[in-house]
Amino acid sequence: MTREAIYHRPKNNFAYAYDTQTLHIRLRSKKNEITAVTLIHGDPYVWEEGAWQYKTSTMRKIAATELFDYWFVEIQPDFRRLRYGFELKNDEETVVYTERGFFHEIVDRDIAPYFCFPYLNKEDVFTPPAWVRDAVWYQIFPERFGNGNPSLNPKDTLPWSSEEPTPANFFGGDFEGIIQHLDYLVQLGITGIYFTPIFKATTNHKYDTVDYMEIDPQFGDKETFKRLVRLCHEHGIKVMLDAVFNHSGCYFAPFQDVLEKGESSKYKDWFYIWDFPVQTEPAPNYATFSFTHMMPKLNTSHPEVREYLLEVGRYWVREFDIDGWRLDVANEVGHDFWRAFRKEVKSIKPDVYILGEIWHDSMPWLQGDQFDAVMNYPYSSAAIQFFTQGTLPAEEFVYKTAEALLMYPQNATEVAFNLLGSHDTPRILTVCQDNKQKVKQLFTFLLSSPGTPCIYYGDEISMAGDTDPGCRRCMIWDEEAQDKEMFQFVAQLISLRKKNLAFGNRGTLQFVTASNATNHVMYTKTFEEQTVLFAFNNSDQEITVDMPFNLRGKKVTSLLTGEEFAYEAERVDVVLAAHGVVVLEF
Amino acid sequence: MTREAIYHRPKNNFAYAYDTQTLHIRLRSKKNEITAVTLIHGDPYVWEEGAWQYKTSTMRKIAATELFDYWFVEIQPDFRRLRYGFELKNDEETVVYTERGFFHEIVDRDIAPYFCFPYLNKEDVFTPPAWVRDAVWYQIFPERFGNGNPSLNPKDTLPWSSEEPTPANFFGGDFEGIIQHLDYLVQLGITGIYFTPIFKATTNHKYDTVDYMEIDPQFGDKETFKRLVRLCHEHGIKVMLDAVFNHSGCYFAPFQDVLEKGESSKYKDWFYIWDFPVQTEPAPNYATFSFTHMMPKLNTSHPEVREYLLEVGRYWVREFDIDGWRLDVANEVGHDFWRAFRKEVKSIKPDVYILGEIWHDSMPWLQGDQFDAVMNYPYSSAAIQFFTQGTLPAEEFVYKTAEALLMYPQNATEVAFNLLGSHDTPRILTVCQDNKQKVKQLFTFLLSSPGTPCIYYGDEISMAGDTDPGCRRCMIWDEEAQDKEMFQFVAQLISLRKKNLAFGNRGTLQFVTASNATNHVMYTKTFEEQTVLFAFNNSDQEITVDMPFNLRGKKVTSLLTGEEFAYEAERVDVVLAAHGVVVLEF
Repeated sequence: MTREAIYHRPKNNFAYAYDTQTLHIRLRSKKNEITAVTLIHGDPYVWEEGAWQYKTSTMRKIAATELFDYWFVEIQPDFRRLRYGFELKNDEETVVYTERGFFHEIVDRDIAPYFCFPYLNKEDVFTPPAWVRDAVWYQIFPERFGNGNPSLNPKDTLPWSSEEPTPANFFGGDFEGIIQHLDYLVQLGITGIYFTPIFKATTNHKYDTVDYMEIDPQFGDKETFKRLVRLCHEHGIKVMLDAVFNHSGCYFAPFQDVLEKGESSKYKDWFYIWDFPVQTEPAPNYATFSFTHMMPKLNTSHPEVREYLLEVGRYWVREFDIDGWRLDVANEVGHDFWRAFRKEVKSIKPDVYILGEIWHDSMPWLQGDQFDAVMNYPYSSAAIQFFTQGTLPAEEFVYKTAEALLMYPQNATEVAFNLLGSHDTPRILTVCQDNKQKVKQLFTFLLSSPGTPCIYYGDEISMAGDTDPGCRRCMIWDEEAQDKEMFQFVAQLISLRKKNLAFGNRGTLQFVTASNATNHVMYTKTFEEQTVLFAFNNSDQEITVDMPFNLRGKKVTSLLTGEEFAYEAERVDVVLAAHGVVVLEF
Repeated sequence: MTREAIYHRPKNNFAYAYDTQTLHIRLRSKKNEITAVTLIHGDPYVWEEGAWQYKTSTMRKIAATELFDYWFVEIQPDFRRLRYGFELKNDEETVVYTERGFFHEIVDRDIAPYFCFPYLNKEDVFTPPAWVRDAVWYQIFPERFGNGNPSLNPKDTLPWSSEEPTPANFFGGDFEGIIQHLDYLVQLGITGIYFTPIFKATTNHKYDTVDYMEIDPQFGDKETFKRLVRLCHEHGIKVMLDAVFNHSGCYFAPFQDVLEKGESSKYKDWFYIWDFPVQTEPAPNYATFSFTHMMPKLNTSHPEVREYLLEVGRYWVREFDIDGWRLDVANEVGHDFWRAFRKEVKSIKPDVYILGEIWHDSMPWLQGDQFDAVMNYPYSSAAIQFFTQGTLPAEEFVYKTAEALLMYPQNATEVAFNLLGSHDTPRILTVCQDNKQKVKQLFTFLLSSPGTPCIYYGDEISMAGDTDPGCRRCMIWDEEAQDKEMFQFVAQLISLRKKNLAFGNRGTLQFVTASNATNHVMYTKTFEEQTVLFAFNNSDQEITVDMPFNLRGKKVTSLLTGEEFAYEAERVDVVLAAHGVVVLEF
């Protein structure tokens, strides 16, 4: 037995409170090496005649990756307390794995070696807002969605155009433009809008905040924004704003004050100024986002800065009734600040959603005390590589996706913010080299994945574009130029996700097949008695694949075409078109 | 290469901020399998012509355990940000290990796979009070240290006696008794006293708090306590109190109110009452510590309970100038409460020490936001097993001790609260079956270990006693009955620890030898040019062991005997008595 491969540590994705009654326990072992794993567990205080009174529960293998198998069991401790260890078996030996290493047999005279989940305290349970699990997000870059009020156009606004923008030009997108197209979003079926920044700034992307308490005049005034939020709510759409708290823009008044008054500025400690006089050229002598002298890093440990930013967090929730905050460059801001931020905004509206922009392993931010979710780039990256480039073997796609699904506690994965692209990446159609079949595969994968999907504006009508600025083109409203078929396809997926519990975010995803030879993968999503099978052909040829289920006598529905079949054979073959996807319910 | 054995994850003991400038990075690999490890690292934003500009730093092997080697490097990132991965080599292959698995070569077109330590934010750095690193603690169980004011004796107080107490009897220990013996403690050299609870309670151990704002009358009044703290401070001794916030005593007024008024009590949500009417027999229908109906668990998520307990935390610091809080059953109370507790008590006195009672892996409490230290039972447990029972092979003792030293970040290990025993365990002399040589070995180990040692009252004069109540005998003040030699030995160790930087808590511990055959171990502690070697014979026979150092021409001092040697040979043999210890400086 490869003992070095066996891993567990409590209070992260390996052991966590799923709710106030339920613990989830996971274990990692070397792939294909262990035949059975049993959880040895009990209340730390239940003893009889000097022996700890433990119970045993069988763990089941829930996933395999390139190197590892993962085992899982759910436990509801009688008194919310648990000590536990693992008994692992294979043909050669049985070992007991504990916090203090390996034993030959179960220890019951001393529980000191066992892992401990000391108490399921309600306040520490990771608890995202209940509505988030069913959300389908749509990301809007406000400068480019719709120009509904030309009187607000900034200087040198260009006519609405499908041409590629430059990094600096303006097309006059505004709130009225969004309001005018709300019906379009309702038709698509999305239930939440994530707006990139709307606060006063100088650029078209508005990430260089000048005033966190004011809306950029090119978008409209506060009354219009209030109306936008109200209309969204009336249409069952949540509103999430983007907060850039890692750094301000250069024209943020406190930073201007520092530039002007230097060491005598009362804001000098609002930033990390290394020495005075402050210089911006040739290189800034203060901490910045990246090396951008236009984006001075905010000192979020300074009491005044904290209070200012916390009030920003509270203000837009309290006064405008927004439903979520997306936090830019969230990983570079201190954990301590985010803990306070969570408390403050949730004190105004308990079910506000807090989403951090973090591209890497985010476990330290998903402990229940900071974010409800992170932008889950690692999850979709294997899928994008697999479906678009064909460079990733099918098995490896499955391994990497399984790893990403196990990276966090299940309650975090259920509300992870999944995306195929954003204003920071090339558009998915372009990544797919204009192959719309591949885009459809990816949308099907995204909309059937655990977590909450986000559609980047225009992807649903097959807009193309390379990375910034290419991906920030004006939304196409000329119906002739919109890809209506893609729109219908995405709308259908959204509808299935909402109506079909197994297809949607109540279903449990399990990979069934991954064939490098035929280059196809299948997974099921199951909920209670219901099973939905997703089969993807990642090759350039039509293939016929065996469905590894006994479907005899079952009614089988093809969810994307609506066809119904009643199978007579025990095994059924299905034809998958080149880069095709079939979704069957049975 | 056993890839399954290779492990790293940021933001715990594998990667942490040692201070605001410095990151510590550790890696685990299969034992004796890797010949070299290089850290690949750089600022995430430094790119040239599409290639990430990384640097490389050699990692060194700092420890070996039964299964693993551990590698370490210290990095001071230019801009407090770091992306990083590991290149591991052996004779067969070279692999690059990242957050997204293994690569054949260093990736520089995309940093997404790399591990990330996004920013060294000051407020998140684990920062214990500076004084703690040099503390030598002494634990006092106040009922049993000295009866200085018989007028305060509780009912049925027994005469001071070296007989074994019962769980329930009283000997009248009090503050005056401690004040009268402060000189004794000064002579011993300790610099901090940890008092088990002193608040109003009914038992002799006072863990059943009746009133958190009052001192138990058997110990004295608040003025006397103030005087005790002042006198301690005048003698360079810090004072730490014991807070039982997981549960109250049954006679705590709010719980009495609930017992009396049931569901209409305004305190009904201060506890976890499962249903009404409240019952204590045959089993309590409310959450308790263990299953003790006399100790109802406090609902620390309730705003009033929080505010009450936080005020307790502040009050004794503010009004009595105490220096530390030891938190009973700290692991069963919510993290959220402890975060608030830290902020509140440190707002009164920034260098208050916060010590949690946790017996298992405590990484989730040592992230910088909760405790400064935990009672480090895992650290000494291998040593106790090794030195006292002789059942643990020498190599395994070294492996287990090395593991315990790597369990937490170095800045946490430096202030870990190390102990050989407490009011909850048998006394160390009894564990050693009255073998004082073994006790001396353990004291030498304890006093030379990283972390802060705590001596349980009376162990320094060879008091014996089995677990509670045996370990809670009255302190022996009859000089004839005190083991003066042991006292001198411990006092000498404390003095060495304070004066000799390598011996003390500035030295870095490195195991040198562990021989199962001769049953002896050696470690060095080094600080700058100074080396102190500790050699322990764990066998019943005198042995002669080779010092694996070139001591030619060096002055060598035996720190415990004061002898000085100037060696001529390159290699030197040293004679170790049965269960003897030799400490050499060179």
